[in-house]
Amino acid sequence: MPTYRLDIEYLGTDWHGWQIQPSHPTVQGALETALQTALRHPVSIVGSGRTDTGVHASGQVAHVIFDQPVDDQRLLASLRGLLPRSIAVRSIRCVADGFHARFDARSRQYRYRLGSLPFAIDEAIRWYLRPAPDLDRMNEGAQFLLGRHDFSSFCRTQSETVNRVCAVNTAQWYRVPERDGALDFVIRADRFLHGMVRAIVGTLVEVGQGKRAPESIATILAAANRIEAGFAAPPHGLMLEHVAYPDHSSTGSNHPA
Amino acid sequence: MPTYRLDIEYLGTDWHGWQIQPSHPTVQGALETALQTALRHPVSIVGSGRTDTGVHASGQVAHVIFDQPVDDQRLLASLRGLLPRSIAVRSIRCVADGFHARFDARSRQYRYRLGSLPFAIDEAIRWYLRPAPDLDRMNEGAQFLLGRHDFSSFCRTQSETVNRVCAVNTAQWYRVPERDGALDFVIRADRFLHGMVRAIVGTLVEVGQGKRAPESIATILAAANRIEAGFAAPPHGLMLEHVAYPDHSSTGSNHPA
Repeated sequence: MPTYRLDIEYLGTDWHGWQIQPSHPTVQGALETALQTALRHPVSIVGSGRTDTGVHASGQVAHVIFDQPVDDQRLLASLRGLLPRSIAVRSIRCVADGFHARFDARSRQYRYRLGSLPFAIDEAIRWYLRPAPDLDRMNEGAQFLLGRHDFSSFCRTQSETVNRVCAVNTAQWYRVPERDGALDFVIRADRFLHGMVRAIVGTLVEVGQGKRAPESIATILAAANRIEAGFAAPPHGLMLEHVAYPDHSSTGSNHPA
Repeated sequence: MPTYRLDIEYLGTDWHGWQIQPSHPTVQGALETALQTALRHPVSIVGSGRTDTGVHASGQVAHVIFDQPVDDQRLLASLRGLLPRSIAVRSIRCVADGFHARFDARSRQYRYRLGSLPFAIDEAIRWYLRPAPDLDRMNEGAQFLLGRHDFSSFCRTQSETVNRVCAVNTAQWYRVPERDGALDFVIRADRFLHGMVRAIVGTLVEVGQGKRAPESIATILAAANRIEAGFAAPPHGLMLEHVAYPDHSSTGSNHPA
């Protein structure tokens, strides 16, 4: 049966996260409803991972298995009409059998947007924080995150995940050209734990505000205890930007429509 | 009496444009109300120019004359609390006496955002149009706008402006890096007529769709008749991005607070 990859973008403001829930509107739920309406049969969609309530995505990836090949361009147009404006399916394409959006993902990249000058245009996706934390101090602290570590200190205490080891290969703050007062944080890892990016951003902001030393990040990691880290930065500044797959798994198709 | 320059950003979605109106919420009206609340006396604010209902601005400039010097950083913080989230004063600074946001402006730059793939993140500021119009054809047509011309053909018929001559020095479409399917149009001129950018974008889109020849832009300009041009592109894709002033007029101050 043919497997399709969907690239999805959403503004998380009005959604209770990705994962389907019985009593709250979620992105996965809205997508399954729209697909079911378009195709006239129930559909299960599997995402690369969950995002929390209020978190956005510009590069969420999901897969869905259909009974038979579909006209992907026609389905894309139908979904545009069926989905609310805050969710957009950017592309649909048939991929190799067995492609799994979650298990095949090799890395995920998140962006956290912060701004120290008042803003209106990107108000829904940027955290206003004044005065601006020190960029160099935050980057000094962020370097301790690189490599393979147990990230228990940056994982929600109620998480049931047993393996807390993640390999971070990018963790960098930078000034956004042409966006005065904006500081973006980009972090990429093979996997992320529940609440991890927001706990990291909150803690690095405390480093940037001079409340913690940059080296404290190493101590916090070693403690493997959430209480050692800082507060969680608000969800609306966070965006899942990219999910990477091995070339062979996400391209090619055995079922041309 | 000290003159202050305000740099302002707004998401125009919920506003009936810049210009104050008796029975509709406008950006100018909201700013005057917030300034009056902060300073406890009536204030008149003068913008670099009007923007239409639904049009956004990331670089609107205005001036205001106060009775006496104010603490600009404190006023900035007050305004952040008093203004709705869709309006942000990005900076306030005392400038040379006599600075006039409208009369001193030397050029204005607008950006029109268009997208041919479904999008959610920038849905409020980008016009969805599928299939994508041809970029090269649009740029070929746009080149006929450069220089000094009578822009009556791209001006609203009900406009009372007598002088319809504008000097356009930039008019360029380009693909947005890292935003798949996005086409941005940047246009800069000494001045713009009422509805001018939207009429230009709508007409260039028709060129990009193959409905008009690129050279037709020259014919349309020569006709000096709005009926010759195309439809007006929707307001939500348009943003006032930058207003330029001579260096001496917008810097320096005779009234340090």
